[in-house]
Amino acid sequence: MPHSNPRRKKNLLLRLGRIEGQIRGITRMVEEDQYCVDILNQISAVRSALNSVGQILLEGHIRGCVTNAIKTDQGDESIDELLQVIRKYTL
Amino acid sequence: MPHSNPRRKKNLLLRLGRIEGQIRGITRMVEEDQYCVDILNQISAVRSALNSVGQILLEGHIRGCVTNAIKTDQGDESIDELLQVIRKYTL
Amino acid sequence: MPHSNPRRKKNLLLRLGRIEGQIRGITRMVEEDQYCVDILNQISAVRSALNSVGQILLEGHIRGCVTNAIKTDQGDESIDELLQVIRKYTL
Amino acid sequence: MPHSNPRRKKNLLLRLGRIEGQIRGITRMVEEDQYCVDILNQISAVRSALNSVGQILLEGHIRGCVTNAIKTDQGDESIDELLQVIRKYTL
Repeated sequence: MPHSNPRRKKNLLLRLGRIEGQIRGITRMVEEDQYCVDILNQISAVRSALNSVGQILLEGHIRGCVTNAIKTDQGDESIDELLQVIRKYTL
Repeated sequence: MPHSNPRRKKNLLLRLGRIEGQIRGITRMVEEDQYCVDILNQISAVRSALNSVGQILLEGHIRGCVTNAIKTDQGDESIDELLQVIRKYTL
Repeated sequence: MPHSNPRRKKNLLLRLGRIEGQIRGITRMVEEDQYCVDILNQISAVRSALNSVGQILLEGHIRGCVTNAIKTDQGDESIDELLQVIRKYTL
Repeated sequence: MPHSNPRRKKNLLLRLGRIEGQIRGITRMVEEDQYCVDILNQISAVRSALNSVGQILLEGHIRGCVTNAIKTDQGDESIDELLQVIRKYTL
């Protein structure tokens, strides 16, 4: 993420701070033996929040690095790498 | 999670502590403008770690609450709730 | 699926017939070199339709086989198998 | 998929033909009231097969359409569309 956009960065850090808080909340729920289904619902909420962070990073990566690589005729390797990342998220 | 198993609880807390550390690591990577693909790979690792925590909780829930509910002929509501949780994870 | 519910069975067969038609539609789109994004959207629709079939089967399985196994104190193996199936869908 | 690669097209059609056969197999399993878990495992196999078809199409799309759009400075819209497709597969 060179030439990183400061607004997007701030947005990402805010989201990650919130996710860290959510993880701490889940830890507390486990410590207090709270109802499993409530904990599972919280985990599902963190998954969605993480997916959103992933989407923002992916968008920045495609609009930045991948686009630059393609414009300078070095797209092949960059696209290989991109496809590998996407595969991890869809399996 | 009443009658919670102390070994499983310890295991869960250990995993959640590790996940919290991973989130802090991702925050640092974003702060330092590290390469997006590396950050995306870290997010994918946290997703897997969270899924494992979810699996452990789900197993405890089915073997505990759902089994008890079924044995006392009160399974219907418990199964509805279980299916709803599973749906969140497979969509 | 012993003691299978005839209405659910009919519902499942209807959905599977529709999915088979969707697959043939996708085949035609590939043959005719249609726009990739349109084909990808169709594949995503089939994925959702398959997930719904899976949910219906899973519900029947939990309310039927798993419940019976638990009631006759033979739940352990049945729950192991159930967890394995769920894992396949959440990974 | 204009300028479509004939080898990839043949590969895709082969895979789709196999998936159609798998769906018919699942239909037969439901008709014969076979064991739910076996049917669920078959559905999970079709999901994987569909994901592979999606990956092949996505790769072709990024190497073809998206790359061309970026090279002619018309990448923005093409990338929006790409991100939307990816989102459908990761939610």
